[in-house]
Amino acid sequence: MTEKETFMTRAIELSTANIENGGGPFGAIITKNGKIIATGVNLVTRTCDPTAHAEINAIRAAAAALGTFDLSGCEIYSSCEPCPMCMGAIYWAHLDKLYYAGTRTDAKEAGFDDSFIYDELALQPEHRRLKSENLLHTEALEAFRTWKEKSDKTEY
Amino acid sequence: MTEKETFMTRAIELSTANIENGGGPFGAIITKNGKIIATGVNLVTRTCDPTAHAEINAIRAAAAALGTFDLSGCEIYSSCEPCPMCMGAIYWAHLDKLYYAGTRTDAKEAGFDDSFIYDELALQPEHRRLKSENLLHTEALEAFRTWKEKSDKTEY
Repeated sequence: MTEKETFMTRAIELSTANIENGGGPFGAIITKNGKIIATGVNLVTRTCDPTAHAEINAIRAAAAALGTFDLSGCEIYSSCEPCPMCMGAIYWAHLDKLYYAGTRTDAKEAGFDDSFIYDELALQPEHRRLKSENLLHTEALEAFRTWKEKSDKTEY
Repeated sequence: MTEKETFMTRAIELSTANIENGGGPFGAIITKNGKIIATGVNLVTRTCDPTAHAEINAIRAAAAALGTFDLSGCEIYSSCEPCPMCMGAIYWAHLDKLYYAGTRTDAKEAGFDDSFIYDELALQPEHRRLKSENLLHTEALEAFRTWKEKSDKTEY
């Protein structure tokens, strides 16, 4: 078994164990320099937190462990192709590479909305099933102006 | 000022105040039955958490306040069009409606990657700038089979 297969096997083991523990069938691990630095499982129902997907939890744990919001140099192994929420988190965290085992189609067949959300996000807001409305656009620009003019900000 | 303009004004005020507090220029509030039940601001740099966007924080706070991962019946007001991570969270939380003030274009002009991430997610994984690799697909299906066969699971 290659090193990356060993890491993925661990992510899949986490996903299976999490079902036994009353959670969803998803697990993830984050590695740096060939070592596991954080793990995560789906805790949506157990913690009443709709954002508590395996990848989000692993990213939060890795950032806490390293004391930085920038996970450049790290890789993530997920038992399933991440949903758009988790993909967004992977981009924001600047992870170097994503490995995944199951696909969004597998997730859909198991009753999860990943595939639907991908389809929704590809549409312009006015064509999505989620109702949305733009308001006070001019007023919002003021915050961005203040941000751009601030000289001592921490960019991310 | 209409009720929804009052709520959005509050979200924008949070975004502006957050810059003063050393955070990013983003604020969000969640309402239910015409009352604010949770707020959130961007805490990425202050808490070393790349997932700590205003909307994610507001959703987590609302779910904790109501004791449920299902925020049906609630609406979210964000000072800016949510990024794909936060949009995903909005779908998973089953929020009824999204109001936003700034747009992804405004965010891009202020130096944030929202627009880039939308473009990436619309591509097939092999065409994205983020490197990814599918492995152990067969092994992953086992967890989904276990999930589908489990009779006493909490679906979400």
